[in-house]
Amino acid sequence: METKIPEATAKRLPLYYRYLNNLLYANKLRVSSAELAESIQVDAATIRRDFSYFGPLGKRGYGYDVHKLIDFFKKILDQDTLTNVALIGVGNLGHALLNFNFHKNSNVRISAAFDVNPKLIGSVQSNVPVYDMRQLQEQLKDQRIEIAIITVPATIAQKVVDELVQGGIKGIMNFTTVRISVPEGVRIQNIDLTNELQTLIYAINHG
Amino acid sequence: METKIPEATAKRLPLYYRYLNNLLYANKLRVSSAELAESIQVDAATIRRDFSYFGPLGKRGYGYDVHKLIDFFKKILDQDTLTNVALIGVGNLGHALLNFNFHKNSNVRISAAFDVNPKLIGSVQSNVPVYDMRQLQEQLKDQRIEIAIITVPATIAQKVVDELVQGGIKGIMNFTTVRISVPEGVRIQNIDLTNELQTLIYAINHG
Repeated sequence: METKIPEATAKRLPLYYRYLNNLLYANKLRVSSAELAESIQVDAATIRRDFSYFGPLGKRGYGYDVHKLIDFFKKILDQDTLTNVALIGVGNLGHALLNFNFHKNSNVRISAAFDVNPKLIGSVQSNVPVYDMRQLQEQLKDQRIEIAIITVPATIAQKVVDELVQGGIKGIMNFTTVRISVPEGVRIQNIDLTNELQTLIYAINHG
Repeated sequence: METKIPEATAKRLPLYYRYLNNLLYANKLRVSSAELAESIQVDAATIRRDFSYFGPLGKRGYGYDVHKLIDFFKKILDQDTLTNVALIGVGNLGHALLNFNFHKNSNVRISAAFDVNPKLIGSVQSNVPVYDMRQLQEQLKDQRIEIAIITVPATIAQKVVDELVQGGIKGIMNFTTVRISVPEGVRIQNIDLTNELQTLIYAINHG
């Protein structure tokens, strides 16, 4: 069961899960890889290859059973358990993320936010309590939080990450523009918006 | 000069450019791939392979000339020309992006925002004018905008994209949760934050 699957495949799993739920919602109980391909905008061969990593999920000529696929992806994506996430830095982007609808289909929620601004500390923003950065270690442990999103100024990003790692964080979504060092066993997902925009421009001019 | 380079390499170009500027700022005029690797957190072999797509940029035993690399990447990333970008949908995330510092090093700026909310139309948010969606085609043409960021509700995303394409948009950064169809020649960059977060959780639990 615990086969190592490619990163690109792993990235598509939540997408599959979300679309399968949409299908179920529309009372569709069976789906072909071609139909999935059409709606997700991923080619059918890729979908079949992705699914093949998990053993036989469909039948030739019949397609895939939507219920069965959902159950399967639900388990593999740990959708049965609610994952609490911490947000560090309640600036503009931080605020937007607190308001961000991390989908009804997703069992992820930001359960605690942290900042150094006395005006924010102790307040509740979009239903999420904002704590003092000095309470970070304590809160992470109490709430058993292992994932954090950082939207802090670039200059303090590494310092904040060091504190997070000390607090037991295993995964970090990094919205700052700096590349951060973490010890082995901790995972960083960089979301570099400027980079994405520049890559898009590059692709258009040189495509 | 117009060799087709891999997408993963293209994604790293803005990163290289940004770090090289940091080096110059710190008065460092020469850099080895090992030093670059250390600061960017990309391994040295990958950096050397990436650079090799552009012909000989460095000398064995000497490393790379920072000035020369910056000039090179500046040209390739079109940093000499300012790229205007439109933002469609001034909600929470849209607001955050208007405030977002798309770096001093980057020649990208959001020059126009669009919304349907009468309270926003005609206002200036973070130095960016907000136009009525009905002025979209006209403004895109007047301002020669070819890139757009969409932060609109998922339900209207495809409709908005159709309008953007009609207005001559060539690249779209999609923050909505739906996958969108575009004609050939138009490029979509999906930034699916829920997906990224779920992938991170998956990686931690199955890594």
